[in-house]
Amino acid sequence: MTLKFELKASHKKARTGILSTAHGDVRTPAFMPVGTRGTVKGMLPESVKTTGSDIILGNTYHLMLRPGAERVAKLGGLHQMMNWQGPILTDSGGFQVMSLSSLRKISEEGVLFNSHIDGSKHMLTPESSTEIQYLLDSDITMAFDECTPYPATFEQAKTSMELSSRWAVRSREAFKSRPGYGQFGIVQGSVYEELRGASAEKLIELDFEGYAIGGLAVGEGQEKMLKVLDYCPDFLPTHKARYLMGVGKPSDIIGAVARGIDMFDCVIPTRSGRNGQAFTREGTINIRNSKYADDTSPLEEGCPCPACTNYSKGYLHHLVKVGEMLGAMLMTWHNITYYQGLMERIREYIYQGKDFDFST
Amino acid sequence: MTLKFELKASHKKARTGILSTAHGDVRTPAFMPVGTRGTVKGMLPESVKTTGSDIILGNTYHLMLRPGAERVAKLGGLHQMMNWQGPILTDSGGFQVMSLSSLRKISEEGVLFNSHIDGSKHMLTPESSTEIQYLLDSDITMAFDECTPYPATFEQAKTSMELSSRWAVRSREAFKSRPGYGQFGIVQGSVYEELRGASAEKLIELDFEGYAIGGLAVGEGQEKMLKVLDYCPDFLPTHKARYLMGVGKPSDIIGAVARGIDMFDCVIPTRSGRNGQAFTREGTINIRNSKYADDTSPLEEGCPCPACTNYSKGYLHHLVKVGEMLGAMLMTWHNITYYQGLMERIREYIYQGKDFDFST
Repeated sequence: MTLKFELKASHKKARTGILSTAHGDVRTPAFMPVGTRGTVKGMLPESVKTTGSDIILGNTYHLMLRPGAERVAKLGGLHQMMNWQGPILTDSGGFQVMSLSSLRKISEEGVLFNSHIDGSKHMLTPESSTEIQYLLDSDITMAFDECTPYPATFEQAKTSMELSSRWAVRSREAFKSRPGYGQFGIVQGSVYEELRGASAEKLIELDFEGYAIGGLAVGEGQEKMLKVLDYCPDFLPTHKARYLMGVGKPSDIIGAVARGIDMFDCVIPTRSGRNGQAFTREGTINIRNSKYADDTSPLEEGCPCPACTNYSKGYLHHLVKVGEMLGAMLMTWHNITYYQGLMERIREYIYQGKDFDFST
Repeated sequence: MTLKFELKASHKKARTGILSTAHGDVRTPAFMPVGTRGTVKGMLPESVKTTGSDIILGNTYHLMLRPGAERVAKLGGLHQMMNWQGPILTDSGGFQVMSLSSLRKISEEGVLFNSHIDGSKHMLTPESSTEIQYLLDSDITMAFDECTPYPATFEQAKTSMELSSRWAVRSREAFKSRPGYGQFGIVQGSVYEELRGASAEKLIELDFEGYAIGGLAVGEGQEKMLKVLDYCPDFLPTHKARYLMGVGKPSDIIGAVARGIDMFDCVIPTRSGRNGQAFTREGTINIRNSKYADDTSPLEEGCPCPACTNYSKGYLHHLVKVGEMLGAMLMTWHNITYYQGLMERIREYIYQGKDFDFST
């Protein structure tokens, strides 16, 4: 038995369910906070848990460089090392190697690159990416792919997607099946319906435990992204989880769930938090704004996070302005809590068979 | 009723007792973690509490500049603003204004200085320092003094001490007595016994609620410091708390308690933690050392802090090396826990009437 995905309810194209892994259940639609280097920045894992996060994401590219996959394995795997006992999904490194490293040489074999840290030479291939994710002890391994840049011509997108398809075969072959663990294939094809369809078809033949939609949220904008999501999820089997990679803002997530997406990851809540931006049901707040300096009210009334229950906007303004760690810690905590509250409301709407209404 | 200090036991010159304030009791000998800008760097106040810290210190100089004393008062005072419901001691700003600000002009009136942040001009006087500490809602206000630089000739030390004595009179006058709140005078006089004696005598006339020993840990070294402590505490009344400012390393604290000191504050555990140095009963550990990269053992066996109970040295090494906030958070937590464990053992030795033995 690998991963189990059970749909509990659906409303139009939106679905809610439970994805069961070796390290516990994930309520979907799910938002995965990003723990790039083996930590969700500025938070203890037990604090991440209290926000309602069921699963977090780790980055293969960063972890293979520091501390190194073998080292993570020696320290007991990612769960044990970072004291996160819940499920973990790792990306394949394909996206970061293109966006962060230098001197990349893409071949049929894989990607040769120089580390962005010390310039050292490394190779990522479908086989090595899959092996690294095994060493990390990831519950959900992602197939190694090329994230097609945007914009791309049809021909460029086709060539890139076909490379990803061949890499998917090799990734699948390299994957070691274990109870409660699984591997997701990644649909590419840019904004071309025909290519997305062909990509999905080839992945489905490989019978992955779930499917991701890649190559979105790379600069095309929300409108074009949602257009792809109007058809792309329909290419995928109903009974497998669907993960939209690297998305997004709350409105992106709402739009994507309405189109049949089950899982998300994004650095927005954590990164924005460190930069002083808070998400609330009344809109975003830039806590650096001097109008908050004397404000005794909480970031968001009714929010259960410590930033809102124990502190004022005035204090958070002070902490963030002077650059105190506690500012980043509390703002991050709030934003992840906000995101998980959003997911909870989304799931509730689907259970109740109602269209999302986030005006209230 | 201002502050109440009750001695519970003593062994030779070492004492243990309870200092009762408006915001709760402080077990002495006590170590006060430093919360310079309204936060103990990298820790939630509830986490500080779990380390066994009864009281924390806030810095008048930093808080008067940012967010400003009036602003802290508007946000409910320092306890309310930072969600620390326990006792708080604030320094007078006298030390920081000399060590951090620029263009200082000392006169009988006070110190005129330029902020180290934006160069803006400010004046600190015995009256304004006392008023600021009142606005901060500090349980223990410190008299405004000049921290005599080291080394100083007898004449220099005498002139400086006498200025501090006159400022102590004005500080005392400016202090508003409230139940559970108190003010400490600060003994100066550098390394000169005669001057220390004269300083103490003048302060005792003012009947402060406690007495601090200032002008130590400013470069004179442990041997000279302990030499001053061989006689200086004896100049002070037995039934009032004695606070050694800005001290120190564990061995400094042990030596000072043996000479009759009750209270300490120091940035060493927090600052060292952020720099990757951990205190343990087996000595200090520099977690950046590459020998810890694969080490699955905890920082310190038996330590109850989260850094030791949930993580390996290898993981902490990784976090600190890559500069993740969580590294600083956990190392700080550990070091404060170590310091409070040390204070607990010290108190236990005194209760049992035994000489300190820290070899085990």
